[in-house]
Amino acid sequence: MTPPLTAPAVILSQPQMGENVGAAARAMKNFGLSELVLIAPKCEWPNERAQMLASGSGDILDAAKVYPDAAEALAPYNLVLATTARGRDVVKQIHTPEAGIERLRAAAQTGARTAILFGGERAGLDNEEMSLTDAVITIPTAEFSSLNLAQAVLLLGYEWLKSADTTPPVRTRASIAQPASRFELTGLFEHLEQELDAAEFLFPPAKRETMVRNIRAMIMRSGLTDQEVRTIRGMIVALVRNKYRGSKKDNP
Amino acid sequence: MTPPLTAPAVILSQPQMGENVGAAARAMKNFGLSELVLIAPKCEWPNERAQMLASGSGDILDAAKVYPDAAEALAPYNLVLATTARGRDVVKQIHTPEAGIERLRAAAQTGARTAILFGGERAGLDNEEMSLTDAVITIPTAEFSSLNLAQAVLLLGYEWLKSADTTPPVRTRASIAQPASRFELTGLFEHLEQELDAAEFLFPPAKRETMVRNIRAMIMRSGLTDQEVRTIRGMIVALVRNKYRGSKKDNP
Repeated sequence: MTPPLTAPAVILSQPQMGENVGAAARAMKNFGLSELVLIAPKCEWPNERAQMLASGSGDILDAAKVYPDAAEALAPYNLVLATTARGRDVVKQIHTPEAGIERLRAAAQTGARTAILFGGERAGLDNEEMSLTDAVITIPTAEFSSLNLAQAVLLLGYEWLKSADTTPPVRTRASIAQPASRFELTGLFEHLEQELDAAEFLFPPAKRETMVRNIRAMIMRSGLTDQEVRTIRGMIVALVRNKYRGSKKDNP
Repeated sequence: MTPPLTAPAVILSQPQMGENVGAAARAMKNFGLSELVLIAPKCEWPNERAQMLASGSGDILDAAKVYPDAAEALAPYNLVLATTARGRDVVKQIHTPEAGIERLRAAAQTGARTAILFGGERAGLDNEEMSLTDAVITIPTAEFSSLNLAQAVLLLGYEWLKSADTTPPVRTRASIAQPASRFELTGLFEHLEQELDAAEFLFPPAKRETMVRNIRAMIMRSGLTDQEVRTIRGMIVALVRNKYRGSKKDNP
């Protein structure tokens, strides 16, 4: 039996601004994270600005646990990954966000309690905190790198949700996107080609086969639905009718 | 010869708040996007609040192009993907961010000019805009979904950079992380086991082999460097020396 899977806790070390904690909570909620832990916040707590920025995710703030230091805050967790920028001088494995999240999910699946630790806005993580973490996650950026706390939480939350997301990479809306049956498509091809023959568009005869093939390929590429096939056939009928009307007028 | 690859433009339709445009520019710069296009901004332009929020990415704002409508703004692009939330009633392919970015990169590699279109804060994208796009990108979220404009730009920018990022998923810092040679490790094993034998820790003899194997596995798991192996051997020497001193004191 699979033990119930718990999403990683988000642990913010010494956050300075309530706004950022609120924005982090909101980012969490977008991606199904709910456990927020604060280590020695430098802003007052509970925090009004945090509540304002959290709009809709105040429940996460209300349930947030606050601890005086990293040892107490990290005590319950079996696997803790720290997010850091480049260049810290420790011998730890550095994961991409995707690989880090994969590791957290694998651990959670065996029943481990997991957490992601984020440093304060300016100071980052101190040595004591780093010594209690298993490994590091670094978010890849361009030369210019100015991700704030809530953005880092957002990106990790996104990877967490994504790692269990079974949405197919490419899809069309199920309700209306049933591709046309081959029967409908063949009907369209024959209808169109008949009218194009009548209009002497498929000319000269030696090129007819290639032209037909190219037109069919062009039509197939748009992945039409039954309804769209019917619409196109209606358009052909309308265009042809108009032409005959025009012809009648020109040559009465 | 590969044509030069151009990153997708970020096109914001009718943005309402300068702050959000500024934050979007900053998000872009983190991930190597630089071409910003605005369709009929509802805020004044140029915009002071945008400049404030852009900190460090003002160059992107300064170079931003502004057009009165979607037809003009989208005119130069060969492939345009729209980001939308769920539930829009159009028959278009819907991509995950990863798949959408893959499609943009593949097109860019053949020399196509590409763009990602983002709707305004409230109204989203209108039908005319949607009709000019090739497909849709939807960012997966939990039930609660309140991503703002700059966050959507951030996530797509992140996927863009990630799609060309060759950072290995897991690594250790190259400068200090050379794993120990087997020679050093064998030296540690033998040294430790010799001292543990002397201390009668590896007891009873029938279990010695298993105990040694378990201890070696535990050590191997930590992926020690040469320096760390030397540190551990120093610790062993220190502990043993202390014990003998203790013994001498106890039994003079």
